Amino acid sequence: MECTIRLAQSADCDCLMAMIREIAKYHNLLDEVKINAQVLRADGFGREPFFRCLVAELPPGQGDKQGHLIGYALFFFGYSVNTGRIIYVENLYVESEFRGRGIGRQLMSEVAKVALARGCTEMKFSVAEWNAQALAWYRRLGAQDKTETAGWHALELEDEALHRLAGDTGQGAGCSATPSLAEGADGDTGPRGSRLEAATGSGQG
Amino acid sequence: MECTIRLAQSADCDCLMAMIREIAKYHNLLDEVKINAQVLRADGFGREPFFRCLVAELPPGQGDKQGHLIGYALFFFGYSVNTGRIIYVENLYVESEFRGRGIGRQLMSEVAKVALARGCTEMKFSVAEWNAQALAWYRRLGAQDKTETAGWHALELEDEALHRLAGDTGQGAGCSATPSLAEGADGDTGPRGSRLEAATGSGQG
Repeated sequence: MECTIRLAQSADCDCLMAMIREIAKYHNLLDEVKINAQVLRADGFGREPFFRCLVAELPPGQGDKQGHLIGYALFFFGYSVNTGRIIYVENLYVESEFRGRGIGRQLMSEVAKVALARGCTEMKFSVAEWNAQALAWYRRLGAQDKTETAGWHALELEDEALHRLAGDTGQGAGCSATPSLAEGADGDTGPRGSRLEAATGSGQG
Repeated sequence: MECTIRLAQSADCDCLMAMIREIAKYHNLLDEVKINAQVLRADGFGREPFFRCLVAELPPGQGDKQGHLIGYALFFFGYSVNTGRIIYVENLYVESEFRGRGIGRQLMSEVAKVALARGCTEMKFSVAEWNAQALAWYRRLGAQDKTETAGWHALELEDEALHRLAGDTGQGAGCSATPSLAEGADGDTGPRGSRLEAATGSGQG
């Protein structure tokens, strides 16, 4: 089957969003999808993207100007204090009628190439236990289940708990935070990486 | 106690590395630390940093030019297809003689502020089951244990498995990958975010 794997572009966000909603529906989690195509565009295709994405595309058919997206792998870069650069695969999806043809595996293979090209030595992802088929598939790719072998737990702080923690300085150690740390970075002209803006920049921009 | 929380800078990498080795020693994992201060500088303070870091610093003592670092929180930004922007805390450390004074909590509070300032709605982290004290501490901060409540497993592909997957196109679906996807991005002049360079750029740079 003819199909191309390429980096997602801003113009793909409507199609991407449709697939994201499809996967959420499959997991019975449609209510938990809080983002839309506009948010996806801002978050993935701005100056400092929060994610990268590869898409699998069929060539344009008769009457189509653009190709038809049939799958994607959404990922981001991160870090381990033991091994250095890592890549985290947040989500992998192939349209149901195209499953079982190796497209998911090829998407993962291309992500692995990106990982190695960027000097990453580990690829990480999370899978829910009830999704036994996915767990078995990832194990066949060679993944180690660190929750089983090393007892790793995935923890999350969200909503009120996150806001409560952010407002918690009064009960803290009495350390003072660099004032601009919480406020943003206007006027900071230091080198990138040590610029406050790098960590506390312009919000939704 | 007087202490300042600020963004880490390139010049902190020697001290940071000493603390990273300290935490690894505590976990009996010193053999697994593959990075050094030079790698840390390249990975965290280049054009596209793979992590950000806050440090807790004591003021300079007599004879010291610089302050003394006593803790850090190392984190990176990521994405959820349900909720959008997230922050992932890879590592939190406070020197043993300064524990129990709320410095760790205050570091986490500052990371939470950074998260909210950047539009993140979730803070994620992983904790090993044997580290019951840390698990209890994070729960007191308001963290949900998604491994317990929703059966999430943490999976990892590394070393040979990652290389095997990257070399796997021959057995794939026969999709063709955009040639420059695996090779880099020389000459691509598209907008940032859709630039191949954004995902496959200059390796150790």
